[in-house]
Amino acid sequence: MSYDPNNIFAKILRGEMPCVKVYEDEHCLSFMDIMPQAEGHTLVLPKEPAETLLDLSDAAAAETIKVVKKMAKAVKQATGAAGVTIVQFNGAEAGQTVPHLHFHIIPGSFAKAKVHAKEMVDPASLQELADKIAAAVE
Amino acid sequence: MSYDPNNIFAKILRGEMPCVKVYEDEHCLSFMDIMPQAEGHTLVLPKEPAETLLDLSDAAAAETIKVVKKMAKAVKQATGAAGVTIVQFNGAEAGQTVPHLHFHIIPGSFAKAKVHAKEMVDPASLQELADKIAAAVE
Repeated sequence: MSYDPNNIFAKILRGEMPCVKVYEDEHCLSFMDIMPQAEGHTLVLPKEPAETLLDLSDAAAAETIKVVKKMAKAVKQATGAAGVTIVQFNGAEAGQTVPHLHFHIIPGSFAKAKVHAKEMVDPASLQELADKIAAAVE
Repeated sequence: MSYDPNNIFAKILRGEMPCVKVYEDEHCLSFMDIMPQAEGHTLVLPKEPAETLLDLSDAAAAETIKVVKKMAKAVKQATGAAGVTIVQFNGAEAGQTVPHLHFHIIPGSFAKAKVHAKEMVDPASLQELADKIAAAVE
């Protein structure tokens, strides 16, 4: 499928839209999900333009999963959650709402998490936890 | 957390327990989930002994996500699903039932999928789809 460069995550990656950033490196950007399914719900995106994991290059996939691991550890530590769920939707039919590949890092049980992409919160309310997660990145 | 070498996936990796295998390479093993949440539900495991993604080496994580991508494409093609969900539980509290890291590849929507690790099916009933997925691996 052709990548839409005007999707909201593409705009965030280009700095045209704000986000509550937690981590950034050469390959990835990580920020707080603005519609958190649980406290500490964090996203990791590759910078490479790809709609789904199936479209991502192997090289970018390898860099991205390292950041997912890094952020999962930081989210777990910062939230004190006993477990962490990682979810990644490929295609609208699977529940993907923004057509730029992203991994969800959700503290605790997905079964107990809120419905995906439903309730937006005030970004300012996420800043304190974002700072805590950023501080926990190894 | 210390890795339990007697968990069922460790036994499958050592060939001490059977599985409906779909793919194997130097780094990973992929087989059908015996308690499928949707038709075509496939697992990908790194061979490296690690309970969660947080414990896995970066090198093994990089190899594993490439196989997850490869298998997600094959599962999508073989099942004809419009979307594919990837889920990975870290810790019993997150819903992890076997303490060897595994990625779930679930055709379609996780929201519409059956409950995790609930109903076991006859492995023989998975063989035909396993063959179809294996044939679709690029």
